[in-house]
Amino acid sequence: MSIVVTYRFPQGVDARKQAQIIAVGQTAGSWDDRFLHRTQQLTEHLAQVVEVRTLADGYHEAEIQFPIINVENDLASLLTMIFGKYSMAGAGKVVGVQLPQNYGTSPKLGIKGIRKFLGVEDRPLIMAIFKPALGLSAQDHAQILQEVGNAGLDIIKDDEIMADLPSAPTALRLKYCREVIEDIKARTGREILYAVNVTGRADQLLVKAKSLVKNGANALLLNVLTYGFPILEALAADLEINVPIFAHPAFAGAMCAATHTGLSYSVVLGTLMAHGGADAVLYPASYGSLPFYPDEESKIRERLRDRNVFPVPSAGIHPGIVPRALRDYGREVILNAGTGIMDHPSGPAAGVRAFFEALERVEAGEPFDPQIVPASALKEALLKWGC
Amino acid sequence: MSIVVTYRFPQGVDARKQAQIIAVGQTAGSWDDRFLHRTQQLTEHLAQVVEVRTLADGYHEAEIQFPIINVENDLASLLTMIFGKYSMAGAGKVVGVQLPQNYGTSPKLGIKGIRKFLGVEDRPLIMAIFKPALGLSAQDHAQILQEVGNAGLDIIKDDEIMADLPSAPTALRLKYCREVIEDIKARTGREILYAVNVTGRADQLLVKAKSLVKNGANALLLNVLTYGFPILEALAADLEINVPIFAHPAFAGAMCAATHTGLSYSVVLGTLMAHGGADAVLYPASYGSLPFYPDEESKIRERLRDRNVFPVPSAGIHPGIVPRALRDYGREVILNAGTGIMDHPSGPAAGVRAFFEALERVEAGEPFDPQIVPASALKEALLKWGC
Repeated sequence: MSIVVTYRFPQGVDARKQAQIIAVGQTAGSWDDRFLHRTQQLTEHLAQVVEVRTLADGYHEAEIQFPIINVENDLASLLTMIFGKYSMAGAGKVVGVQLPQNYGTSPKLGIKGIRKFLGVEDRPLIMAIFKPALGLSAQDHAQILQEVGNAGLDIIKDDEIMADLPSAPTALRLKYCREVIEDIKARTGREILYAVNVTGRADQLLVKAKSLVKNGANALLLNVLTYGFPILEALAADLEINVPIFAHPAFAGAMCAATHTGLSYSVVLGTLMAHGGADAVLYPASYGSLPFYPDEESKIRERLRDRNVFPVPSAGIHPGIVPRALRDYGREVILNAGTGIMDHPSGPAAGVRAFFEALERVEAGEPFDPQIVPASALKEALLKWGC
Repeated sequence: MSIVVTYRFPQGVDARKQAQIIAVGQTAGSWDDRFLHRTQQLTEHLAQVVEVRTLADGYHEAEIQFPIINVENDLASLLTMIFGKYSMAGAGKVVGVQLPQNYGTSPKLGIKGIRKFLGVEDRPLIMAIFKPALGLSAQDHAQILQEVGNAGLDIIKDDEIMADLPSAPTALRLKYCREVIEDIKARTGREILYAVNVTGRADQLLVKAKSLVKNGANALLLNVLTYGFPILEALAADLEINVPIFAHPAFAGAMCAATHTGLSYSVVLGTLMAHGGADAVLYPASYGSLPFYPDEESKIRERLRDRNVFPVPSAGIHPGIVPRALRDYGREVILNAGTGIMDHPSGPAAGVRAFFEALERVEAGEPFDPQIVPASALKEALLKWGC
């Protein structure tokens, strides 16, 4: 049982030398004759360079195998070991992390649990984001939820910027939205998940999360990268938090957007999120509004699904991308739209309807050309956002 | 009261347009005629572009002022707002964050408290790191501490990679090292700070930190960037944690090393650490073993001292750099050496003595040329590591 990490170096870097520096420097850290009497204890902790290769594009890759006894079966001690001090050493990027299947934390619900809760097994799920991000009151949130919920929405989440603010306190947002969710359930039998953004200092956040769940929160949203993997892991391990955790990628670019430093998006938003206990993970879709590579997106998708975690391609999603999304993802996906629902020309409810019309049209094999699509919420969406 | 953030963009980026995208996209997020009835609530939350300028090197800088009502007086909600989604938008780096003086968390002890505890007011403090990083037992730690403690060391810390491992459990490291600290205090009256690495899932870490302090830990080490600012803030706010928190920069390169993305080192290791409640902050010295810019180092130094936080230049520190360090820092600094003490040719105790000899030599205005320095621990250090 070990951990294999792939580091990528640009041309001109002596990758073999760097690999050796990592294998020693990120484990024993110091190694000379004085430690001969401790040789066995030290070698147990030393990493091994498995392979150093040069790729067709001139980049070098080094695979390094770390002993599992160096870490605590969590992500923070893992990151400190594989890239703590070395992250500051110059050009070198973590592009792959292979962990034992049972490493870290598993989602409590994941794909299966979320589908079971919603009672929807046979189609992609449709998710919206409250917009505008800031400036809505708690009651405004409930009013919007009523519109989109009655239109058939499956999941809604707070905007990730919406903290626990006096203008719309978290507990109040939950209170008013909960009433809407219960009303819709009473009238239609349908459940709607509302991922409430849980924020605050670590101690306060953990208490607040329990309190939100006790008060009816049926999902949580966590900005995992600004709040920290140890908080995700704590929520995921807490049996009182018996609701899905939606992991938001805010701040991922700070550690993933550089070519020669940091970690690849698929490591952070795929591998690490999947071993941190997230039930669903949001990340930029390659055909959305943020620059994102299709191969990173597909790696994220696979790594999440491998551990029963729902992939949630996001940012710039609108009804016109549904055919492409279904071609790439099939039905095992949550389609998450912010303005792509909230800014629909005929309002948020029409935004939701446009997504469902898009799903039906793909199912029926019908074309998406806005000139052909009959007058509908979908047609309006296609005319506004294209396809 | 507001927050002013400076974003830097490379040539070719329309900085004015990007600044507007940030000011709206990272606050209200969506803004059109439909929201006219909520104009007042929305505008209260909107950020304002203060200035966009082009620098002599062709880079553009945009200063954006965010309303303080958008955040929770903490770092995670701040980072989510100023750089959450936008971190994924392409080239653009956060190079400055101006916060109100009372924003965030203050250190409980800081420079003044650490000096008072140690009873050392008039010179730089000397700090060591247990090495090798992994492979030492708890008893090995105590044996090393006895050597360096008797030689006059002020502070020692766990290596940041040393988690709570069966080969050297955290509680046992503390137990054995505590005995040494008490023995030295009984014999000499001197205190030694031992910054114990506190690790684990958020819930477990917070409990463990209290338990360590109850069991005699007189300082804590936290890998703030792999464990998260909310954990630093929780420890700093906890009155039971009445010991200094040493913040380690592990993983900083992942978010700071890139030229066009991420955040500058001085923002993360200076501004944010200083407003997160750290008592002392480690960071790479510009004349150390990691690539680091002197102007970033000096910004970090100033921002930490502004809030009574001890600057701890680290990585590749050895006795030969003492003259340069004192020229830059004066006495208000902790000189932190790992191998620069532990790998001294005559052993760790000689490593500590070499630092004190160096301090005296600087004080006396004597040259550091190893050919001139009389036979001593310092001379050996200079012959090994230069000056």
